[in-house]
Amino acid sequence: MVDTLHDTDRRGFASDNYAGVHPEVLQALAAANGGHQAAYGADAYTARLREFVVAEFGAAAEVYPVFNGTGANVVALTAALPRWGAVITTATAHVHNDEGGAPERVSGLKLLVVASPDGKLTPELIATQAWGWGDEHRAQPLAVSITQSTELGTLYTPAEVRAIADFAHDRGMAVHMDGARIWNAAAALGVSLGEFTSAAGVDVLTLGGTKNGLLGAEAIVVIDPQRVTGLHYLRKLSMQLASKMRFLSAQLVTLFEDDLGLRSAATANAMATRLRRALDDGVATGDIAHLSFSQPTQANAVFATLPNAAADRIRERVRFYDWDRAAGQVRWMCAWDTTEADVDGFVTAIREELAREG
Amino acid sequence: MVDTLHDTDRRGFASDNYAGVHPEVLQALAAANGGHQAAYGADAYTARLREFVVAEFGAAAEVYPVFNGTGANVVALTAALPRWGAVITTATAHVHNDEGGAPERVSGLKLLVVASPDGKLTPELIATQAWGWGDEHRAQPLAVSITQSTELGTLYTPAEVRAIADFAHDRGMAVHMDGARIWNAAAALGVSLGEFTSAAGVDVLTLGGTKNGLLGAEAIVVIDPQRVTGLHYLRKLSMQLASKMRFLSAQLVTLFEDDLGLRSAATANAMATRLRRALDDGVATGDIAHLSFSQPTQANAVFATLPNAAADRIRERVRFYDWDRAAGQVRWMCAWDTTEADVDGFVTAIREELAREG
Amino acid sequence: MVDTLHDTDRRGFASDNYAGVHPEVLQALAAANGGHQAAYGADAYTARLREFVVAEFGAAAEVYPVFNGTGANVVALTAALPRWGAVITTATAHVHNDEGGAPERVSGLKLLVVASPDGKLTPELIATQAWGWGDEHRAQPLAVSITQSTELGTLYTPAEVRAIADFAHDRGMAVHMDGARIWNAAAALGVSLGEFTSAAGVDVLTLGGTKNGLLGAEAIVVIDPQRVTGLHYLRKLSMQLASKMRFLSAQLVTLFEDDLGLRSAATANAMATRLRRALDDGVATGDIAHLSFSQPTQANAVFATLPNAAADRIRERVRFYDWDRAAGQVRWMCAWDTTEADVDGFVTAIREELAREG
Amino acid sequence: MVDTLHDTDRRGFASDNYAGVHPEVLQALAAANGGHQAAYGADAYTARLREFVVAEFGAAAEVYPVFNGTGANVVALTAALPRWGAVITTATAHVHNDEGGAPERVSGLKLLVVASPDGKLTPELIATQAWGWGDEHRAQPLAVSITQSTELGTLYTPAEVRAIADFAHDRGMAVHMDGARIWNAAAALGVSLGEFTSAAGVDVLTLGGTKNGLLGAEAIVVIDPQRVTGLHYLRKLSMQLASKMRFLSAQLVTLFEDDLGLRSAATANAMATRLRRALDDGVATGDIAHLSFSQPTQANAVFATLPNAAADRIRERVRFYDWDRAAGQVRWMCAWDTTEADVDGFVTAIREELAREG
Repeated sequence: MVDTLHDTDRRGFASDNYAGVHPEVLQALAAANGGHQAAYGADAYTARLREFVVAEFGAAAEVYPVFNGTGANVVALTAALPRWGAVITTATAHVHNDEGGAPERVSGLKLLVVASPDGKLTPELIATQAWGWGDEHRAQPLAVSITQSTELGTLYTPAEVRAIADFAHDRGMAVHMDGARIWNAAAALGVSLGEFTSAAGVDVLTLGGTKNGLLGAEAIVVIDPQRVTGLHYLRKLSMQLASKMRFLSAQLVTLFEDDLGLRSAATANAMATRLRRALDDGVATGDIAHLSFSQPTQANAVFATLPNAAADRIRERVRFYDWDRAAGQVRWMCAWDTTEADVDGFVTAIREELAREG
Repeated sequence: MVDTLHDTDRRGFASDNYAGVHPEVLQALAAANGGHQAAYGADAYTARLREFVVAEFGAAAEVYPVFNGTGANVVALTAALPRWGAVITTATAHVHNDEGGAPERVSGLKLLVVASPDGKLTPELIATQAWGWGDEHRAQPLAVSITQSTELGTLYTPAEVRAIADFAHDRGMAVHMDGARIWNAAAALGVSLGEFTSAAGVDVLTLGGTKNGLLGAEAIVVIDPQRVTGLHYLRKLSMQLASKMRFLSAQLVTLFEDDLGLRSAATANAMATRLRRALDDGVATGDIAHLSFSQPTQANAVFATLPNAAADRIRERVRFYDWDRAAGQVRWMCAWDTTEADVDGFVTAIREELAREG
Repeated sequence: MVDTLHDTDRRGFASDNYAGVHPEVLQALAAANGGHQAAYGADAYTARLREFVVAEFGAAAEVYPVFNGTGANVVALTAALPRWGAVITTATAHVHNDEGGAPERVSGLKLLVVASPDGKLTPELIATQAWGWGDEHRAQPLAVSITQSTELGTLYTPAEVRAIADFAHDRGMAVHMDGARIWNAAAALGVSLGEFTSAAGVDVLTLGGTKNGLLGAEAIVVIDPQRVTGLHYLRKLSMQLASKMRFLSAQLVTLFEDDLGLRSAATANAMATRLRRALDDGVATGDIAHLSFSQPTQANAVFATLPNAAADRIRERVRFYDWDRAAGQVRWMCAWDTTEADVDGFVTAIREELAREG
Repeated sequence: MVDTLHDTDRRGFASDNYAGVHPEVLQALAAANGGHQAAYGADAYTARLREFVVAEFGAAAEVYPVFNGTGANVVALTAALPRWGAVITTATAHVHNDEGGAPERVSGLKLLVVASPDGKLTPELIATQAWGWGDEHRAQPLAVSITQSTELGTLYTPAEVRAIADFAHDRGMAVHMDGARIWNAAAALGVSLGEFTSAAGVDVLTLGGTKNGLLGAEAIVVIDPQRVTGLHYLRKLSMQLASKMRFLSAQLVTLFEDDLGLRSAATANAMATRLRRALDDGVATGDIAHLSFSQPTQANAVFATLPNAAADRIRERVRFYDWDRAAGQVRWMCAWDTTEADVDGFVTAIREELAREG
């Protein structure tokens, strides 16, 4: 018997990755257990996942469960690019900043990075790097990667995605969406996943799960099979093919079944909104000083600016990460299991420690 | 609620990957759930795993949980080799045959492959490729990779591993063991894991778990930190770093806790022995014809030779894989959940279908 | 007999790569010819080159002739970085812009790119990317790459290089200099190569040759062997090891012998200065309108801004490249073989076509 | 002035790479010099080369000059394979043995290696590795690489190449020929290059030059553009694009012009034949003992077996390489500049030193 070795009542605002597994997901693992099932995807749960994906993203859609978001992003982009291709993305993109150089190292992909204050690309920003086709001295810009919701907690509307996709497709570029927090985006926008992906011109999608209550599972969803190639092989040779895939697929199925994906994300979003509102109110009334916000709160993240010393004192009480220490920016992230009491206690901690700034 | 979509009473002899998750492992996942735990390895379950690993493999040992065996093998070998390094291994090695070219593609590793009828390397076999150091025209042989138990179901004794390690170390080569089925080896040899790894000169180890009743978790165990470098970074940039690592580590902990790893493997081994004995007996008495064996059964696999037509008829009743169709070889693999009734039923099916060969 | 198929009297301002081979270099190839010489570097001319390199860059210096600048840059940076390393460089760096993604594709290197109006890095600019050591989510910044003279025709003083090297070394980063036009820099600064390389803290150098009158040869010069590893192997496996190396080395020797490298570069620089002065004078007197300059002319390049239509008419008469068409910027490059008459004719063409702008 | 630093009268039997440059090649470099020519291939000499290539290999043929044979082989194979492709080749292939792992490291290619006593593949040998298409666990065999003349000095007839090509094409595999010594093959077979390449089903060719009297130039010749993709980009990002390409192309043109390629190769072949005959005669008459031959002499190499001690004494007089020291095998290689006197002197040295064996 493995004992519980940690405090199961303690939660913070560090990351939606710090949260555990939704009980319905553990139930799904148990339901998928027992007997023998063919390995590597020829199982009943992967078949069921495929049905959900086709229903959501269209009849041509394909789904490839993988282990993690880095794997999903890198394999999806690799499948969308020839060996000489490059990806246009933002300077805050996870694929650029947080994957240890995996795109470059594993697949030799060049990233063409554009600064964006709100973490979003636009056709105008893409245009600054979208040039040089046919010139062998320039890595060929053949894909655009956007994140929904972004690493800065902001959202693309379906129309904004469509504008990017039209711009990209007109120039022969594929569109990848890093949807590590795609459920938060759907819940916040109040639309289906399909409305800002398949219906808006996205070609290949990283369908997130782990940050939204799964134990560990993401999927590459191919929306337009004409725009990608070789995923069957690339997933394996990129070391992202699970043997007991039934358990990855069963996790992913839960997100669609009974709307668990949207339910969990809606909770996380609501808690971020509650946090932001309480703080905004405190600032407005003068109850809270030394605090401002660097981004709107559109999904499950609050980006705040406050004195480093105060941040450090708050952190001793509740865990979270600095975002840009030099600028005094921090990130407060809500998860599927964040409670109203968690938020209220955190607001208290913030108020008390900021008050000590004088 | 995700429903059970498959027949939980059906088991075959296709692969230990077809089996599900041991109930104690599901319990461990539940025990590790709840609350927030730091991502990427700074959690209580990874700390616990580290204690077990140090106890088993020595005070200098380090453990890096990863998603799958391909990841463990490729990242371990990468950490053991400079960019100009090559790996000496067998022609039947998983790393050569079954990983879709991942070592070459992800890390640029060259494999120097040696034919071996029983799936085992020896100093003599290694010597055929261990040459050319200092010559930049030759990828430098700087690691040896052996599999325990081998892909052919055979075993290295601790002394055999030691002889290989001495030979390798004398020539500046590191020793990697692919232990995807290391628990089967330990159970069969009746010794601890350490006796044929750390005590026998292995430098870096793929510690298997998924094939032995886990949901999905393997680990790289560094036994001699002087022989490897950069695992902290390589795991991440090779896309094998799990965010919610507590759930990988909790699985791996079960293998050590209450000896589940050895118990599960012992069952699989015993069932393979039962299968082999029943068939050997049938052959000896003349009850079974048209059947021979291409390898000894030392762990949880039986490698048999029989007419393709008979194999195909048996397969319609119970699932398994051809190994070398041209040679009429098949592989019958037992798992932690294989029962005596499964074996006995399979023997009956084999006997009946072989009898139809006349 | 191969006939001359082109107009040997025609020269332009497109690139120093468009120029041919200095007669002394052809003589050196003939001198190195005849008889047999060991391949791959064990020849008398590579030995002679080594003597020059040690004399110029210090007793520890090593030299590795290669085919081209892309090869020299990528192999040098690879040797200076572990697999998880990243390079801080400018947005205008050749290694980022003009090598088709070779650093990423061949060696998996991540580039961390900093915008710089004059093509030069400073400690302050480097600092914007020099962070995150120890965090496996960030490709580790372990090298800085600067270009001398820069892609914008500007120069680093020895003191500027030293400041960068001190900053880099203090943080554990190696310093690479892309010296594709290093001879132009030395000639312009009036100092030896060593003064702004080995004496200023550069660890590994791309020693240019092709742009300065060679047929085709560059070299990697290791100044501090403690900062790089594996060049012996990396050159070969990166496909940059010449079999008949005596002919690469003989070319490179000419640059040092009788000061041909400085002489050729001084001519190119002088011609750029002549061009710039004539145009500056024309602008000052009002003789020339619609023309300005986006960079100082410190080596052999003139960066000018003028109407696209005028640039196109001038180009019909004398060949050159746009640098940034949207901004109306062009690059006029002088070579070792540019003559005063070439410059004067080009000034006339520029004046006449700009006059048509009204 | 660079002085001649070596003995221009000394030649050995170590390698055709030890030989220098044919005088007609130096003349071609001079003819291509002077004035400015567009870099990277838009020059008159590359255009001329293209005419020769189309005349020899067919109207669809394309030519991409590169620096060396490793570059040509790796880039050609990369262009013939998707990221999940593997190459079937022999255990003695240069691409496997002598390129320092460049195919694996630069392009992630997996080699599937077949033992072959005479260095030649056959459909039967290829068949041992040509399987597993569609199975993502196996790197997909999608190209076959053969060497003409082989690394063991043997030759494929046009019919043998055709049989391989038919076998490969029937299974969806492309055919690459490593023609580092293709001129020796053509001269020995008495047929045009096209007869055993384009007319025999070869899809992409490494057209050798350096081993046949050039200073340093090879080319990738695409015979069937349907079988390869992206060479325009792959050459650059593989660091094999020469800036002053006119000088590579001018060298390659000499091979076709006035039949210099065939003339030089015929000399090298004739000298190898002279050497072999003299030794065969000596053995037949009993004049020479302790000497046998492990391969027929079909091109410009003689593979001999003799006591190591005798080989070492001979080597003190005339340089050559061991091939397999354990087996007492040596390689004696003739070049375009080998003279009858060189051969006769070498035969004398061999006879004298073997006589001392008693």
